[in-house]
Amino acid sequence: MQLLKDRIRRDGKVKEGNVLKVDSFLNHQMDTKLFREIGKEFKRRFEGEEINKILTIEASGIGIACVVAESFDVPVVFAKKTQTKNIAADVYKSRVESFTHGRVYDIIVSQEFLGPKDKVLLIDDFLANGKALEGLADLVRLAGATLVGAGVVIEKGFQPGGDAIRAKGIHLESLAIVESMDEKTGEITFRE
Amino acid sequence: MQLLKDRIRRDGKVKEGNVLKVDSFLNHQMDTKLFREIGKEFKRRFEGEEINKILTIEASGIGIACVVAESFDVPVVFAKKTQTKNIAADVYKSRVESFTHGRVYDIIVSQEFLGPKDKVLLIDDFLANGKALEGLADLVRLAGATLVGAGVVIEKGFQPGGDAIRAKGIHLESLAIVESMDEKTGEITFRE
Repeated sequence: MQLLKDRIRRDGKVKEGNVLKVDSFLNHQMDTKLFREIGKEFKRRFEGEEINKILTIEASGIGIACVVAESFDVPVVFAKKTQTKNIAADVYKSRVESFTHGRVYDIIVSQEFLGPKDKVLLIDDFLANGKALEGLADLVRLAGATLVGAGVVIEKGFQPGGDAIRAKGIHLESLAIVESMDEKTGEITFRE
Repeated sequence: MQLLKDRIRRDGKVKEGNVLKVDSFLNHQMDTKLFREIGKEFKRRFEGEEINKILTIEASGIGIACVVAESFDVPVVFAKKTQTKNIAADVYKSRVESFTHGRVYDIIVSQEFLGPKDKVLLIDDFLANGKALEGLADLVRLAGATLVGAGVVIEKGFQPGGDAIRAKGIHLESLAIVESMDEKTGEITFRE
């Protein structure tokens, strides 16, 4: 998606340790006009697929998921992160290992809002090691719902998440795949 | 807002301890069609006000804020909750006491995304004790930005937050004000 790549090149900041900061438009300040275009692009890429629910994960996935959901005309459910030991009985639960934050947490979704009739598109802002998407896919499986695919805004192509998700046979659409970044020059190369 | 009140009466569940569960459409599963109508209603209620940024707080405020922002054609910034002791230097910070969760946490926003030129509308899903809104208003003040007003979807009128916010002279618009709830009958009475 050219508009997105241009925006990443213009406003993204490459930091030490393969960090790409896009918090001026994607995950702290949020450009909802761009989100609207992102929604149209996902709609185009999943054209013909039957989708009746979008599943995302708190916190920064929620904004994009909600605007994207308007293009699909479906509700959003977001999985909650929790470190509480006492999880309520009426939820589906999966475990996610976060490399970025160096911790493990549970993600939960109420059984009321995910079930066998749901045809689910996963939406998230970033894909790096893929653990969050895998956790969401696990929730879909536990609920007996159908996983239609996954849409992410930015995939770090030099990290293993994208390949792992594709190897599972999941239809993954990444709107911008970063092939490499140079923290000295700030240069960002996208996969064609 | 009649559409919202009807929806709360239909799908809201009154639980012990003055809890109103609206997680089927507002803060776990999210009805983005309803959010769009909520956006139009806030736009109408703040008609004529100059607003160039919406500020909300993670996590459940983000979805509504993003859809509402489309009606105002402005970006959203969300304050992050943190319990980290080492807060970065380039953020504004306030402290919020959560009665619901019985804990105190810091909320932060990058100084890059809130400043003297910003005319800010606060958006949140719930208003009970008002501590989250007060924290957000504090961030606006610290940034030297202008606080135009606050829009909340559901105000619990029997808790002190709404009155406290109005007493500070903040232009508060609540789309549904719950005057009382009966956990035995499930009956919900709205303020006229």
